[in-house]
Amino acid sequence: MAYQAINFKEKLDLFSEHWSPRVIAEMNDYQFKLVKIQGQFVWHKHPDTDETFIVLAGEMQIVFKEEQVDLAAGEMFVVPRGVEHKPLAAKECRILVIEPRGVVNTGDVGGDLTAENDIWV
Amino acid sequence: MAYQAINFKEKLDLFSEHWSPRVIAEMNDYQFKLVKIQGQFVWHKHPDTDETFIVLAGEMQIVFKEEQVDLAAGEMFVVPRGVEHKPLAAKECRILVIEPRGVVNTGDVGGDLTAENDIWV
Repeated sequence: MAYQAINFKEKLDLFSEHWSPRVIAEMNDYQFKLVKIQGQFVWHKHPDTDETFIVLAGEMQIVFKEEQVDLAAGEMFVVPRGVEHKPLAAKECRILVIEPRGVVNTGDVGGDLTAENDIWV
Repeated sequence: MAYQAINFKEKLDLFSEHWSPRVIAEMNDYQFKLVKIQGQFVWHKHPDTDETFIVLAGEMQIVFKEEQVDLAAGEMFVVPRGVEHKPLAAKECRILVIEPRGVVNTGDVGGDLTAENDIWV
């Protein structure tokens, strides 16, 4: 065995692409993914699962059809399954996303921002 | 709807007991629990699930039979299912634990440190 702590900052320093999730750990069939975000993502939903956002550094918003959640470092939000949402960040924001293995970042809509899945860092 | 960010520090300020997990959110059948820990916990394992520790403030150790993981704020570790472990912290440490709903903090051993489950804050 060679158990080791996973340091968010060290892992975040290893990549720079926006909207490109990097897996850092798995718990049962769930994955922990670091993501650097900036600008507007696409409207989408995940029909089969909730999706957790934890902000590690910076600020972001998750926009819903009729409201908006503002998130800063040290805050989290769980987007319920099936609910349309659009993440965005005016400046670069660093987040930890937790969701089942295999969930695609653009959910039901696809498009240019669809990231390759299951890339580890 | 009244979606709201969950602020770790605000929630942590609402209780002071050690080794007494408080649920702050759910994602599918998983729970996010804040815990303030200090001193030594009991050796135990969770035969049916992995268990995630994220350190929010302070430092902790997770001791295994043949090694130890040191964790500081901004670091995480996933304890594999079935592996005996003992969390400890010399000074108060504030952590976020993620695991399936219904998991008992003392796992397979029980005892005085067994906390009531599913207490929200």
